[in-house]
Amino acid sequence: MTSSRSSAQLPQVVIENVSPSVDCGRYAAKRSLGDRLAVGADIYKDGHDLIGARVRYRKPGERGWQFQPMRFDFNPDRWLADIDLDCLGRWEVTVEAWPDFFATWVADLRKRLDAGQDVASELLEGAALLGRAEVASGARAVVTAAAQTLADAGRSVEERTACAFDAELAAALQGPLRRRSVARSKPTLEVVVDRERARFAAWYELFPRSQAPEPGRHGTFADVEKRLPALAELGFDVVYLPPIHPIGHTHRKGPNNARVCKPGDPGSPWAIGSEEGGHTAVHPELGSVGDFDHLVRAAADCGIEIALDFALQCSPDHPWTREHPEWFFQRPDGTLRYAENPPKKYEDIYPLNFWCENREDLWQACRDALLFWIDHGVKIFRVDNPHTKPLAFWEWCLRDVQARHPDTIFFAEAFTRPKRMYGLAKLGFSQSYTYFTWKNSWWELRELMDDLTDERVMEFYRPNFFANTPDILHEYLQRGGRPAFRARLLLAATLSPSYGIYSGFELCENVPVREGSEEYLDSEKYQIRHRDWDAPGNIKSDVARINRLRREMPALQQLGNLEFLESQTPEILWYRKRSDGDDLFVAVNLDPHEVREGLVSMPVEDLGVDVGAPYALRDLLTDEIYEWQGGQGFVRLDPAQRPGHVFRLEKAAGDSR
Amino acid sequence: MTSSRSSAQLPQVVIENVSPSVDCGRYAAKRSLGDRLAVGADIYKDGHDLIGARVRYRKPGERGWQFQPMRFDFNPDRWLADIDLDCLGRWEVTVEAWPDFFATWVADLRKRLDAGQDVASELLEGAALLGRAEVASGARAVVTAAAQTLADAGRSVEERTACAFDAELAAALQGPLRRRSVARSKPTLEVVVDRERARFAAWYELFPRSQAPEPGRHGTFADVEKRLPALAELGFDVVYLPPIHPIGHTHRKGPNNARVCKPGDPGSPWAIGSEEGGHTAVHPELGSVGDFDHLVRAAADCGIEIALDFALQCSPDHPWTREHPEWFFQRPDGTLRYAENPPKKYEDIYPLNFWCENREDLWQACRDALLFWIDHGVKIFRVDNPHTKPLAFWEWCLRDVQARHPDTIFFAEAFTRPKRMYGLAKLGFSQSYTYFTWKNSWWELRELMDDLTDERVMEFYRPNFFANTPDILHEYLQRGGRPAFRARLLLAATLSPSYGIYSGFELCENVPVREGSEEYLDSEKYQIRHRDWDAPGNIKSDVARINRLRREMPALQQLGNLEFLESQTPEILWYRKRSDGDDLFVAVNLDPHEVREGLVSMPVEDLGVDVGAPYALRDLLTDEIYEWQGGQGFVRLDPAQRPGHVFRLEKAAGDSR
Repeated sequence: MTSSRSSAQLPQVVIENVSPSVDCGRYAAKRSLGDRLAVGADIYKDGHDLIGARVRYRKPGERGWQFQPMRFDFNPDRWLADIDLDCLGRWEVTVEAWPDFFATWVADLRKRLDAGQDVASELLEGAALLGRAEVASGARAVVTAAAQTLADAGRSVEERTACAFDAELAAALQGPLRRRSVARSKPTLEVVVDRERARFAAWYELFPRSQAPEPGRHGTFADVEKRLPALAELGFDVVYLPPIHPIGHTHRKGPNNARVCKPGDPGSPWAIGSEEGGHTAVHPELGSVGDFDHLVRAAADCGIEIALDFALQCSPDHPWTREHPEWFFQRPDGTLRYAENPPKKYEDIYPLNFWCENREDLWQACRDALLFWIDHGVKIFRVDNPHTKPLAFWEWCLRDVQARHPDTIFFAEAFTRPKRMYGLAKLGFSQSYTYFTWKNSWWELRELMDDLTDERVMEFYRPNFFANTPDILHEYLQRGGRPAFRARLLLAATLSPSYGIYSGFELCENVPVREGSEEYLDSEKYQIRHRDWDAPGNIKSDVARINRLRREMPALQQLGNLEFLESQTPEILWYRKRSDGDDLFVAVNLDPHEVREGLVSMPVEDLGVDVGAPYALRDLLTDEIYEWQGGQGFVRLDPAQRPGHVFRLEKAAGDSR
Repeated sequence: MTSSRSSAQLPQVVIENVSPSVDCGRYAAKRSLGDRLAVGADIYKDGHDLIGARVRYRKPGERGWQFQPMRFDFNPDRWLADIDLDCLGRWEVTVEAWPDFFATWVADLRKRLDAGQDVASELLEGAALLGRAEVASGARAVVTAAAQTLADAGRSVEERTACAFDAELAAALQGPLRRRSVARSKPTLEVVVDRERARFAAWYELFPRSQAPEPGRHGTFADVEKRLPALAELGFDVVYLPPIHPIGHTHRKGPNNARVCKPGDPGSPWAIGSEEGGHTAVHPELGSVGDFDHLVRAAADCGIEIALDFALQCSPDHPWTREHPEWFFQRPDGTLRYAENPPKKYEDIYPLNFWCENREDLWQACRDALLFWIDHGVKIFRVDNPHTKPLAFWEWCLRDVQARHPDTIFFAEAFTRPKRMYGLAKLGFSQSYTYFTWKNSWWELRELMDDLTDERVMEFYRPNFFANTPDILHEYLQRGGRPAFRARLLLAATLSPSYGIYSGFELCENVPVREGSEEYLDSEKYQIRHRDWDAPGNIKSDVARINRLRREMPALQQLGNLEFLESQTPEILWYRKRSDGDDLFVAVNLDPHEVREGLVSMPVEDLGVDVGAPYALRDLLTDEIYEWQGGQGFVRLDPAQRPGHVFRLEKAAGDSR
């Protein structure tokens, strides 16, 4: 026996499996502002005593704890409570439970009285119980009086028992009777509450230097401003800009990633830094920091947020290479090491040595670059290749920034092994890229969505389905043409509450640099592109329509409400997005080349439709009405005409459901 | 930045989700002797370095740790290793991982050489890497020589690079190069290795006092001995005896739980203790402790183990009530409190106050009672109502006893809320009763088995399917008669590797004390029963057959190898028990009244049967051969004739599969 533990230290009530929890409480769970947090726990003890339980939680920045009583749900044998998440930041949550000796005594007394038993001894035990209770001073008088009444042999049994069931007494004895009988779950769990935009947004990526309306000129922030009304019209919430900093000239890459560049070639924006500055400077041809501030304000006026790229690497010309050579890797010959993925060499980029001797200075400088842009109104950062920087750095940096600015959103661009992508999300990234671009068949999409909607994964991982990126032009788009772009847009925008396109997608740009490559021909990464935004064949009306639907329909603003339904045609993906009486049913033809048709199942029993009665579905993409009957419907999708349907049950006149 | 943490303390390699783990490592996982333990972990780090990983484990009672290298499984992105569990007791397991800088350097060097790049700088970096390595003194010379060769500009590049790929060098650099680069998973996980009998056994429960062959006489241990050969013939592994201790006389219960007893009524064996002794004494009419020892030895000679009941409660006449009144609850009037479940009163039993002031003496006395019987050869205890005693007591007591005697098995008799039953199993009970007796329809059985074969639950919860108990004669048996007993026997013996029957089951005893009760009429709990073990209608041949099959067929010795297959007839339960090329297919007619028939599916594609070819199934219960063809078979079960089938694929002559 561990004789050093007194009885009081041994747990009488066990609290287990508290949710939400990520990796046993090692990481915070994620929620959005306004969510209702469901806290659950398995709680039990030996014997027959009733149990009391409550959530003990602390709001961000507050010193005091608040309490919320928990209720017992017999099936599935679990204790539950809801907390309204009404402010941003890092909430703390634990569960407390105790044997509810008073409630047990009252319940037993009732049973004894109902059975006509003598309760003289029980009344004395009740009095003793009250005598030992630690109650707030305000309630002390009620409890003391009750104890005296219960023990008073001079009074009638009726009077004494009535006192036991007194509502005022019950109120005074809510919660644990003695502090040392309270068990508390460990560790304290954390829940990070982000803005809704961390979960739900339509993104648009553009290179500012390509935004000049006239060919041949380097675009500017002012040119970007001029495009904002059109982007707002298309329904985008976030406009993300690749790095806007001065671009290095040493080993600058030419068009199509050529190893040598010609004079006037603009280089890659990810080769950050030159004599004109580094991560807190602006490439002079784009404008000034003041021009950028103007852009941020103009965007806000359109309801658009500007997101910046955060790429922690330097061109050989970055000021840090001179001011802090010790922040880089040095080769045995004393030169700084450029980036490599052997045998590939990236001589225009130097990686930072995050584990260098004075790493604290480096880490703070990186963090300060974020704070600089936050001061200039940027609250969303798309982080480039975070998996090549230390996990410990991100955990510290993101937490530090969000403690100062809890409305900051970090979007992880890591395409790597799943556990590492999950790891970055767990340690603080608000949302993440996924494998979506590479998942094009029905089984690939189902597998992807099964992974992403796993309840444990949803606690920390928020997907953002970019349908293309400057690095990824999938073969499906290359070969499928305009129908493929329309289908992928519909999938991205309805399967994930956050999605995005990189500019050119709406023009169905699909020419790769060479056969078998996912790189674009004449990629904007290395040169300025000029586009006609109204070019024939553009799918802007699709974009505008689906983005409007996303804002109107709550079903498209959540991730875990997805349910795949049976489709007899594998090329027709058929799924339901649930939303409390306003479900959507989406059909997408995954084949961009052929007409596909077939029966799909319809769970009429869930929808309040009379079995056998006809019902009408409105396609929210076209406003057409379809009449169906029974548990199956027929879908025919011609990719030349439409990518799919977004059906909503048409409500009968007078049907207020 | 947490400036108090040096770089060395910040983790570069992350180890997560180590398995097996119960409740984040709070409790031990369970395995059986001879099992191969699969240890898994998610391991990742930033950047491109390769990772090395190993299991670090310690056998029970050993001081030193052993290591087992882990291998990476790309899908599902997890690190794995197997450990052979070759001794009983509590094993400790952690996972270690580190950046494998040497392997990374070698792999990169190979790529550079293949690309024809200059590697002069890389050779110097390799030399520096070796210079920093902490290697065992035996390997020091090899590593030092290699470092010199790599750095030696006087030698040819060929000679220097050859040195990098030297097998002896690779062997010397296995494992982490530097101790401080090693991450270790926390907490250390525990795995309790029990005897195989904790997982796989056929139990038989009998009241010794009912074993006299002639009516009217109180049975003895010697009478039990005489029954052992017959029980061994039936194939039982464990014979469990209700309490064998002196029975109290105060408030002794009469037949059928009458509140008053007549002279000569034997009382309930669970009213433990009299002037003749308590938990370490033997009821005189059964014999002496020496007679008990003789029984234990005789049982062992038959291959049978004797299990005792461990019921921590006392009759009012138990010696402890006089020697230690402070171990009991006292009422305000100074009397000891009898057991109650208001409004029910159990005046023949006093509960123990496990949280009394000198609880340590009480806890040790309880533990010592176990040690007493262990000294008398008992290694299996069926623990009565453990959920009414403190969880902390069991955790301490079971751990203490198993530390001394790791071959001890504890069987929890708790019929309560699922989480509390799981809780008892987690804190140390080797196996547990279940709700099996109350699950009789196909969906109840499927739900029960889904719960019990959940991977997380199987880590700690081993079911023992008693088909009846002295407390539970289910309505299904009461109404279904002999066919019901045969079906329930077949289900219990094939669904769970541990199962049992309480004597009388083989005689199909099914008369309740009254309509609507699950209590037996003339229950042995309160009186002596005399039986004719060869009474007509007995199902002993069923028992003997299924127990022999259980010993012969590995498929019946595991729990998690169960798979329910499709049956078009809900009353016919159809399931597969997998076992590495020797699967069994079991059909049970759950309807004891009607003939049921229908098609069941057969996964021929898994079985190496040519599509379209006929195949033969042998019913191991009857040795009959059935010829099937294709993915479905027809089953017809007449409850008057047979409860079901246990099919095994008949192998063709010369088929060595």
